[in-house]
Amino acid sequence: MKRPNSTKIVFIGAGNLATCLSLALKKKGYCICQVFSRTENSARILAEKLGCAWTTQIQEIQPDADLYIFSVKDSALQQLVETIPSNNGIWVHTAGSMPINVFPATNTRCGVFYPLQTFSKERSVDFTEIPIFLEAREEDVYAFLEGIAKELSHNVIEATSLQRQYLHIAAVFACNFTNHLYAVAENILLRNGLDFKNLIPLILETAQKTKSYHPIDAQTGPAVRYDENVIDKHLSLLADTPALQTLYKELSQHIHQYAITAKQSSENEPNQL
Amino acid sequence: MKRPNSTKIVFIGAGNLATCLSLALKKKGYCICQVFSRTENSARILAEKLGCAWTTQIQEIQPDADLYIFSVKDSALQQLVETIPSNNGIWVHTAGSMPINVFPATNTRCGVFYPLQTFSKERSVDFTEIPIFLEAREEDVYAFLEGIAKELSHNVIEATSLQRQYLHIAAVFACNFTNHLYAVAENILLRNGLDFKNLIPLILETAQKTKSYHPIDAQTGPAVRYDENVIDKHLSLLADTPALQTLYKELSQHIHQYAITAKQSSENEPNQL
Repeated sequence: MKRPNSTKIVFIGAGNLATCLSLALKKKGYCICQVFSRTENSARILAEKLGCAWTTQIQEIQPDADLYIFSVKDSALQQLVETIPSNNGIWVHTAGSMPINVFPATNTRCGVFYPLQTFSKERSVDFTEIPIFLEAREEDVYAFLEGIAKELSHNVIEATSLQRQYLHIAAVFACNFTNHLYAVAENILLRNGLDFKNLIPLILETAQKTKSYHPIDAQTGPAVRYDENVIDKHLSLLADTPALQTLYKELSQHIHQYAITAKQSSENEPNQL
Repeated sequence: MKRPNSTKIVFIGAGNLATCLSLALKKKGYCICQVFSRTENSARILAEKLGCAWTTQIQEIQPDADLYIFSVKDSALQQLVETIPSNNGIWVHTAGSMPINVFPATNTRCGVFYPLQTFSKERSVDFTEIPIFLEAREEDVYAFLEGIAKELSHNVIEATSLQRQYLHIAAVFACNFTNHLYAVAENILLRNGLDFKNLIPLILETAQKTKSYHPIDAQTGPAVRYDENVIDKHLSLLADTPALQTLYKELSQHIHQYAITAKQSSENEPNQL
């Protein structure tokens, strides 16, 4: 395995994930030699953080790196892969929902390097706990990517393109949709003269519980027992926001149905959940 | 104000909230003198933890305590309030969705003591950060409750019965519904041979972000920009679970609508969110 400081990496993209991943790799001693982004400002800002070169021109991308990390919007990935001149480096992308087949089938020096986390440019993250899902077409490429991933995280897992798509869907539920429920809660409080910060201990504890319990076993509240008294009262209090009323009803029914199904399946297959 | 160790408290109820609250009060030096519960086992177990008396008989409830904390299911509260013989102690309940009017209007020695958190009997919680919402009909009763609440938490807030109902609804969104989305995510992963533990860093980071950002500003993912490519792909991958498909669609539309509304309202009233 090559040592970090002799591994040259080019970043294609300078967004949230590219920023966090490149900074984490640099910290581990990897040589990030260039950042490419169509947006000059993004390229320059990230390159300054990394102390490396940057470009907005495809033809200026350095051809002699060991690894090219494509970390761009799904919609831009295919076109970039087709436009950047081929070279001897390994090409990977970092997208949950894109298959490895975004790289042409003839290219065996390619793979996927997918760290499952929500990233922000201005928020530093500890990669140690972040699961990194890898995919490659050849064993030596996989081993190369695994070597790098294990420098960052103690949780490195092989996953197929299909599994990664379901990971992404699960992440949409657990992160994007969850965050939306926080936003809904803030809105309800604001409209009633209450401060969102009062919900934060509850939000943190609910999240912390996932470390000790299966969520299905930790489910509490009026919906799980379908307490119609409370549910109807809540629905009537939401009468002036029909969209929230619908969402409340749907989620409550879904929770109740889930609890029934889980109970049945745990009676049949006690170890399933 | 009475000193903790000269304040005698009876707990009516021995569930999750009663367990956590009584243990926290005992730790602060309060004298928990008795636990009442219709369920012998619950009463005995909590009383053993507290080192105090217990009973399942209403007529055996000690009449000379300073404070009676009713911490029972909403559906049992009204009946208990009407059945327990009146005395000179202050009576409070701990229910988000029940108004202070569950106590007869003639009783001025009553109130509400509502700690906003999700409690489990077997999980110890630090009350310092937990907001406690108080309501009372008389100033001296409020001051008495505030004295106790401030021994436990540095976040004690007065709230009306109506505000508390909205707090409870917000908590249902931020805790119960959120936990359900975790359960959905676990289910999706299980059915695809993936381990739920891989989502935990993402879940924790999403929750942690509420300490630094308004959730509406932290919203990421395909729904907020209504990326139909990704959304349609996800919907087709959920084809074998129509209920999840519907939930995914509803939440995505809701997120998108919210983002549009927030953008409009921030253009009109820049400081609202």
